[in-house]
Amino acid sequence: MSYLDRIRAANNHDPGNFLPFVVTGVRVGCVKAAFAETLARWPEVFRVDARGVTLAAELNSSKVPVAERTRAVGEVLQVLREEQLIDGWRDEHYPVNRSWTEAPYLLIERAAVPWFGVRGYGVHMNGFVRGADGLKMWIARRSLTKPTGPGKLDQMVAGGQPAGIGLYDNMMKECEEEAGIPLDIAKHARPVGAISYVLETKAGLRPDLIFNFDLELPQSFSPVNTDGEVEAFYLWPIERVAETVRDSDDFKFNCALVIIDFLLRQGHIAADDPHYPDIVEGLMARPAPLSD
Amino acid sequence: MSYLDRIRAANNHDPGNFLPFVVTGVRVGCVKAAFAETLARWPEVFRVDARGVTLAAELNSSKVPVAERTRAVGEVLQVLREEQLIDGWRDEHYPVNRSWTEAPYLLIERAAVPWFGVRGYGVHMNGFVRGADGLKMWIARRSLTKPTGPGKLDQMVAGGQPAGIGLYDNMMKECEEEAGIPLDIAKHARPVGAISYVLETKAGLRPDLIFNFDLELPQSFSPVNTDGEVEAFYLWPIERVAETVRDSDDFKFNCALVIIDFLLRQGHIAADDPHYPDIVEGLMARPAPLSD
Repeated sequence: MSYLDRIRAANNHDPGNFLPFVVTGVRVGCVKAAFAETLARWPEVFRVDARGVTLAAELNSSKVPVAERTRAVGEVLQVLREEQLIDGWRDEHYPVNRSWTEAPYLLIERAAVPWFGVRGYGVHMNGFVRGADGLKMWIARRSLTKPTGPGKLDQMVAGGQPAGIGLYDNMMKECEEEAGIPLDIAKHARPVGAISYVLETKAGLRPDLIFNFDLELPQSFSPVNTDGEVEAFYLWPIERVAETVRDSDDFKFNCALVIIDFLLRQGHIAADDPHYPDIVEGLMARPAPLSD
Repeated sequence: MSYLDRIRAANNHDPGNFLPFVVTGVRVGCVKAAFAETLARWPEVFRVDARGVTLAAELNSSKVPVAERTRAVGEVLQVLREEQLIDGWRDEHYPVNRSWTEAPYLLIERAAVPWFGVRGYGVHMNGFVRGADGLKMWIARRSLTKPTGPGKLDQMVAGGQPAGIGLYDNMMKECEEEAGIPLDIAKHARPVGAISYVLETKAGLRPDLIFNFDLELPQSFSPVNTDGEVEAFYLWPIERVAETVRDSDDFKFNCALVIIDFLLRQGHIAADDPHYPDIVEGLMARPAPLSD
């Protein structure tokens, strides 16, 4: 077992399993063939053929307002929710676009994002404490009722990044909700870069980017969950955190990568470790080109 | 002027300008059309057609030893050196492969690497000093006789990563040669990840990965160059380093990105800076797929 196993587990996708998802001529994601067939039930919303999935002509023109595409696709997604195909519904709108700064082509429910192979964004925070007995990290155990990774280990604070709120404000909000960290402590969280991965799931593809933050907490602070998303918090020596990431899959797959990035930035992984180059590059994964 | 300008300057390539370079059926790089035409002068070594460049059949079988491909291609490169097409000859062998861990298909002279659009690797070190007056960074000015970026600003220690030496050993060697840092100080250099970029040059493409190290130096230490590659060293407050990267192109293009990564990891770039997401992702660039 090694850090590289965690990276490989988060980057398992076979481009041959996917067809392009194209909006207004721009490839914004990809879908599995079975989901393409499902979408073909709504020819007034989706145009599906062997080359991939796009929107029906009336929705696909670049002149159609984003709200109209959002509404038409949203109605289909509601049916698929009722049919229990799309589960883990969140009632959060995520942008469909190719990059952070690009204006979205439409917004879709968060739970549907992997079905369309659209890039998802998140904010994760490494909360740590420095004491006489060394570096420790606060770890959360996810609630057993979470739709993804129930009961898995997680960062002290982590959340998806919806449309309509900035990274910093979202991080502050999650600090409050997930761990009861007051703003006068949370505001010292340092934005320290990102990790990316491309995970194939039963639903589709998650070509995600997670923005990482570090926050050094006072020794006197103890987290308190306020939104029911956390089962328990633990304060572990960094060596135990590293070992757990390396030797088990107790951490949710993407939380493990955020910790590997933290360990890397702290110089915990030796440059002459034979896995070092692949670990470094493995945290910057990009989707392989589709085979179309 | 902004950090993003530095990232854009290092990621300027047009995939339409390149043809694939394929060895034993595996795409390992890409070449400009004019260079493909040049290589066509040696049909006993290269097979060139509209689809791209590969090796002649006798060299292209996977059974041919790496040394034989290396020798045959090396003879062509020597002629191109004598014709002064390939300049900046280094007499260092670089591996031709798709990733760090893959066994090389052949080795080529370092100066030829961009001509074949093969990934190059380097090791760069941020040397810094913490004092009562804040964080300072040692900066090098490159010798005016360097084949690339003469007179530009650089990390205190930086070098290419040739075949046949590990990252750590190479970093230690460069610390000694470039800045006279003795091993008992240099060994504390922390490997802290990497940056990548895809630069189109007149010669070809540089889809490079740079492994970054941080080294905190004692206030009493002053660097001394021993290999003639450094014109001068400066100890600058981090604010001046940041400003110079942001507001000028005085730093060599890839050294600027290494400093942006350092600033990011130190939390110097605010998460609500509108450029933040593109800066973060811009340091993880990958080549766009070729248009073949």
